[in-house]
Amino acid sequence: MILIHTPAPREVAAYLDLFRTALPQHVFTDLEGLSRPEDVEYVITWGPPPGLFVGMSRLKGVFNLGAGVDRLLQRDDLAAEVPIYRLLDGGMAQQMVEYVRYGVLGYQRHMDIYRRQQTAGVWKMLPPRLPAAVRVGVLGLGEIGGQVARALAADGYRVQGWSRSAHTLPGILCHHGPTGLDTVLNESDVLVCVLPSTPQTRGLLDATRLARLPPGAMVINAGRGDLLDLDALQGLLESGHLRAAQLDVFPEEPLPPAHPLWRHPAVTITPHVAAITLRQEAVEQISANLRRLAEGSEPLGKVARTQGY
Amino acid sequence: MILIHTPAPREVAAYLDLFRTALPQHVFTDLEGLSRPEDVEYVITWGPPPGLFVGMSRLKGVFNLGAGVDRLLQRDDLAAEVPIYRLLDGGMAQQMVEYVRYGVLGYQRHMDIYRRQQTAGVWKMLPPRLPAAVRVGVLGLGEIGGQVARALAADGYRVQGWSRSAHTLPGILCHHGPTGLDTVLNESDVLVCVLPSTPQTRGLLDATRLARLPPGAMVINAGRGDLLDLDALQGLLESGHLRAAQLDVFPEEPLPPAHPLWRHPAVTITPHVAAITLRQEAVEQISANLRRLAEGSEPLGKVARTQGY
Repeated sequence: MILIHTPAPREVAAYLDLFRTALPQHVFTDLEGLSRPEDVEYVITWGPPPGLFVGMSRLKGVFNLGAGVDRLLQRDDLAAEVPIYRLLDGGMAQQMVEYVRYGVLGYQRHMDIYRRQQTAGVWKMLPPRLPAAVRVGVLGLGEIGGQVARALAADGYRVQGWSRSAHTLPGILCHHGPTGLDTVLNESDVLVCVLPSTPQTRGLLDATRLARLPPGAMVINAGRGDLLDLDALQGLLESGHLRAAQLDVFPEEPLPPAHPLWRHPAVTITPHVAAITLRQEAVEQISANLRRLAEGSEPLGKVARTQGY
Repeated sequence: MILIHTPAPREVAAYLDLFRTALPQHVFTDLEGLSRPEDVEYVITWGPPPGLFVGMSRLKGVFNLGAGVDRLLQRDDLAAEVPIYRLLDGGMAQQMVEYVRYGVLGYQRHMDIYRRQQTAGVWKMLPPRLPAAVRVGVLGLGEIGGQVARALAADGYRVQGWSRSAHTLPGILCHHGPTGLDTVLNESDVLVCVLPSTPQTRGLLDATRLARLPPGAMVINAGRGDLLDLDALQGLLESGHLRAAQLDVFPEEPLPPAHPLWRHPAVTITPHVAAITLRQEAVEQISANLRRLAEGSEPLGKVARTQGY
């Protein structure tokens, strides 16, 4: 039996329909229809509540309806030997490209400054800036970050990439490790963070590292909220060292209503929507993986627990 | 003798340097250095003041440092037989693509709604929308509009085009004439106007035509300010029929400080910067045309006065 669970009952109903059509030979259930946890072989889930996996003694795998698995790895009700599979893309890379492109394009074309001029009723042309004059640093060069870096390079920006371990991307200068990170920070007019949250990346963008960005730089965080020190970011925006930020993820979500960043004129806040799992794509990937498991072959997207993604 | 004149003295100085280097065999001057108007053979200009052409009895041509020549055609100091040459692109098409893409992308990704939610401190996801679900109508399919339409189609949007006379663009459904315009208006979630101002296009987007747009549509005007009825637009924004507007051009520029659109939360105002002539590109095009004239061949970009562009 395969359990489908997400925080939204209507979404669960939609997934049940899609999976039952895609794999009629399997039995799918929602949480309400489940009487014995020990019957569950697989769980397809996003944001499982505490204790969801308790009693699932025959659990053979968990399919995460997203790319980020950090929260799944920090639970005490899920045995370390149960494999976790993440979505490889789920239509998310293209969405991430769009979200990041919007921020970079707005920066290049001074749209944030024009918006502030508009508030003050000021009509003032700024000198045009070509894409080739904007240096972009992309942190995270996996499935998603690689596509973001390539798309921005195709748009004409000067793109460098960084990842914890060495990656190569055709046509893009790639750095890695702590020294490489300092280089990218020193040379990025727009810093784009699409890293996963792992023990090695948490708190990566602290006050010291953010201060390396050139004056007038912008920060886009669409990775995870715990990578970026929000207080340090706010300080650098208020000192005028940084010009703008576009933030999709936060240490606490929703961002608390009283948080001062909500009202900061240089900050764009979106409610964790940079890349939303597209249902049909997710169903196709997970169905293909369930077929691979039935045939005894290895599914795609298995999470390496020691690396955290 | 070739006169260079724009409203910004520093810009004139920069153009003088560039043209003198590009064409050392010609004599270039600014207005201060000109003693006898009858010595002027060509004028290279943007926004010439009233009376500039008075006394230029040997004037053989005017090079406009931009694409829009509507104001040059409405003067009483410039004889109808003097040919006017406009810039074919001048690096402007790519800038226009960027400006329009920013607006369409923001609409597709709900960035305008998230911005309004942010003002209210509201964290609320909206359902994702793919580019293929956004219908874009591009009015104007010349040099610039054609590139805009093709770029948006390549981004995945459902693009239709419209122009006064019939055009064809590979892969894009093109309409023309009054009936074609109604079709495009009826079916555009985002209406993009990059038309020139001519006697036939002035006032084109009036209250009746704007009301044809589907509920929740957005208007982007980067053509000319006199194409669009601002009061009608504002009424449709306030009734909620239209969702947003991104405006770069206005009937009166600068937009007067007291104009209510400055403070409308659904409107983005930019100070006529969607496509700014890039100096080096303009110098190259005009120099090539001056060489063609010296050789007795036909320059590019000659304005058809009867059509107005």
